[in-house]
Amino acid sequence: MKKILVIGAGLSASYLINYLLKNASKEKWMITVADANLELAQQKIGKSKFATAIALNIEDASNRKKLISEADLVVSLLPAHLHILAAHDCLELHKHLVTASYLSEEMKALHTQALKANILFLNEIGLDPGIDHLSAMQLIQDIQAKGGEIQSFESYCGGLVAPEFDDNPWNYKFTWNPRNVIVAGQATARYLENGLLKFIPPNRIFTQTKAIKVGKHGQFESYANRDSLGYIEPYGIGSAKTVLRGTLRRKGYSEAWNCLVKLGLTDDSYTLPHSETLSYRELVCALISGATNENLESNLAEFLEVSKASKLFKKISWLGLFEPTPIGLMNATPAQALQKLLQEKWKLKKGELDQIVMKHELTYLQDNKLKQAHSYLVVNGENQVLTAMAKTVGLPMAIATKLILQGKIKARGVQIPLSREFYEPILKELESFGVKFEG
Amino acid sequence: MKKILVIGAGLSASYLINYLLKNASKEKWMITVADANLELAQQKIGKSKFATAIALNIEDASNRKKLISEADLVVSLLPAHLHILAAHDCLELHKHLVTASYLSEEMKALHTQALKANILFLNEIGLDPGIDHLSAMQLIQDIQAKGGEIQSFESYCGGLVAPEFDDNPWNYKFTWNPRNVIVAGQATARYLENGLLKFIPPNRIFTQTKAIKVGKHGQFESYANRDSLGYIEPYGIGSAKTVLRGTLRRKGYSEAWNCLVKLGLTDDSYTLPHSETLSYRELVCALISGATNENLESNLAEFLEVSKASKLFKKISWLGLFEPTPIGLMNATPAQALQKLLQEKWKLKKGELDQIVMKHELTYLQDNKLKQAHSYLVVNGENQVLTAMAKTVGLPMAIATKLILQGKIKARGVQIPLSREFYEPILKELESFGVKFEG
Repeated sequence: MKKILVIGAGLSASYLINYLLKNASKEKWMITVADANLELAQQKIGKSKFATAIALNIEDASNRKKLISEADLVVSLLPAHLHILAAHDCLELHKHLVTASYLSEEMKALHTQALKANILFLNEIGLDPGIDHLSAMQLIQDIQAKGGEIQSFESYCGGLVAPEFDDNPWNYKFTWNPRNVIVAGQATARYLENGLLKFIPPNRIFTQTKAIKVGKHGQFESYANRDSLGYIEPYGIGSAKTVLRGTLRRKGYSEAWNCLVKLGLTDDSYTLPHSETLSYRELVCALISGATNENLESNLAEFLEVSKASKLFKKISWLGLFEPTPIGLMNATPAQALQKLLQEKWKLKKGELDQIVMKHELTYLQDNKLKQAHSYLVVNGENQVLTAMAKTVGLPMAIATKLILQGKIKARGVQIPLSREFYEPILKELESFGVKFEG
Repeated sequence: MKKILVIGAGLSASYLINYLLKNASKEKWMITVADANLELAQQKIGKSKFATAIALNIEDASNRKKLISEADLVVSLLPAHLHILAAHDCLELHKHLVTASYLSEEMKALHTQALKANILFLNEIGLDPGIDHLSAMQLIQDIQAKGGEIQSFESYCGGLVAPEFDDNPWNYKFTWNPRNVIVAGQATARYLENGLLKFIPPNRIFTQTKAIKVGKHGQFESYANRDSLGYIEPYGIGSAKTVLRGTLRRKGYSEAWNCLVKLGLTDDSYTLPHSETLSYRELVCALISGATNENLESNLAEFLEVSKASKLFKKISWLGLFEPTPIGLMNATPAQALQKLLQEKWKLKKGELDQIVMKHELTYLQDNKLKQAHSYLVVNGENQVLTAMAKTVGLPMAIATKLILQGKIKARGVQIPLSREFYEPILKELESFGVKFEG
């Protein structure tokens, strides 16, 4: 009998907990789901006799420690900065820990101690980061195994609305944390291009896009992620002259988003005076010299150097930025005001499904010839709880949890899933859930 | 016998101390000049029998307090954030304080206590802020006294190189703190335009310029200061529909500076890897997708959408940004790298003089007619010590010091110089030094 403690029963927990419950009998697991909201935890476990729901305030160290002490493995679905609380207990109590978050410096610092305790702290085992590592490493190591030398590596991922429900001019709806979308591109991006280090300052992130075709799923575009360089060494692709990671959107999104950047609507550095009563129309007007309530639309078209009949202008107009609706938030930054508007406009409505798209594009030298390799993944949500995002974030964590408890993962210390013992079994099992890369 | 303590003997102290020494005999003053660098303080007082130079580490509270206790008035030329140290002592010991810096929130908070102690903490009595307040208030109150209602108020100021020494394509050299020039425009600017609040986000500050003619001194241009709204109430111009304060440069500067902004060279938010050995050419190359060492110039011209023969391109090229010279700074941000380069290129050479230019433009309603008023000031440096900047910053402080000690200033508490008792005598005496507004 093995005991699994899942901390956090939010959006990404559904698929993970379903998987654990389904495998509980066969694997001889007892599962505890702990959340600040007991009802949420109870909902997630349903009537399973292999699971218990429990209320937990994560800051309550003695309760947290007690729960962790009873488990063999802890899955933390907490907000990223809180994993470290669980990690310190896991270290003391010699328990494995699994998270889908980016490996933090704090977590990294526990490597030697975790090694010594013979436990595994597995991070970045969700979608992005997670499935991107697994699938990239499989492609890369397959190429290297047959003597190929990686020349370029590009990897793109996006959470989008499924095509059947794609009914707005932006071809986008929120399927995850809206805040991340609003503040995307606010830091300088860095990548490698033909052997040269390249930077893209925030004012140009959304102007420097690349068209990406994904099989029969059509045209997408990508804008650069903040840091494309960090995985060159871990991936073992020091031979690559071009390394770029980006975020996928449907065509036309970035050009329109760049208008919002240019206007100053993504600015998060100052609060608007009287933002509670200030209207969106007044806000846009305030951002263009010469614009007035009377001439706003023409003035904006001139500012953007497009016609009012253009697709671009229609995207802006469709957002409701010309409406006299009050922002209705106290001390809001322009970015917060924009987020509030977009959360209404870009809402995934009841019954609408999301879609995950990921693509890797590589070139490599083999027998003195430059060859290409690529693979892509498209996953649609099943319903509003079992979304594509919850599935692709939760399943890799769940499968890794099983493999660790079965003793099939030998890695110890603080890790991210880059080696064959991760990618081979996890990608294989993901396929049985319809999470399958195509070439 | 009155005692004056001047803390700080740096760049802006020369004119101030000269004035105090010249008036010491007649006014029965003893002057103490304190600086961390004793030699600097000694240089400034020369052989005057009315002055003493003394070494002072401003953080040394007991020495600082002792010096202040012996004075009747303290002039602080410290970096702005250090005035508050002197202010607390002045409050305790009941001494007047004069500074040329912007009134800080910390300083403002001392108002009631300073009133109670019957002392004056006079701030913003330099050039900008300082002479701008004095001259603006004289214009405004003259108009209001004859029944005019201010409709618009615009005020511009810049520290430039004197025309005789203006020999580079930017028509600009550093005459004050270079860092302020490099990071100008990194925050959203706000102003009032035809009754509407307007914002300019950082990515557009240098694109939204205004042409300003200054008498026979020719064409200038201005870009918006961070906050044009803060003086509407203190100036008593709530009737104005347009209020804009800006920084003056020679024509063409802003368009070229905007290229540096667009490139990302003013970014101060991240450090460049290996910045000590990275060359300027490599840095610019890293900021443009597709640029290589071979095609950099053509690529940049294309990026900027100008010809390589254009004035704009020549400005960029003249800076030395295409040279393979190493930046030579550890962990430098792009902005720091740019500053290092500009400090060489835009250096005021030995014998070269600076120039201060200020202009106010107002419109007002009188007898139902819209009328205009304007005035401007141009001051050239006398030599490399008695610069236009040192003169226009130091003289108003010096004259205010005299007026306070003569009992001619009645204001008490924490103040900025907006009322007639400041602007009338100070502007009048400034004229005798050639600091004279023309209409």
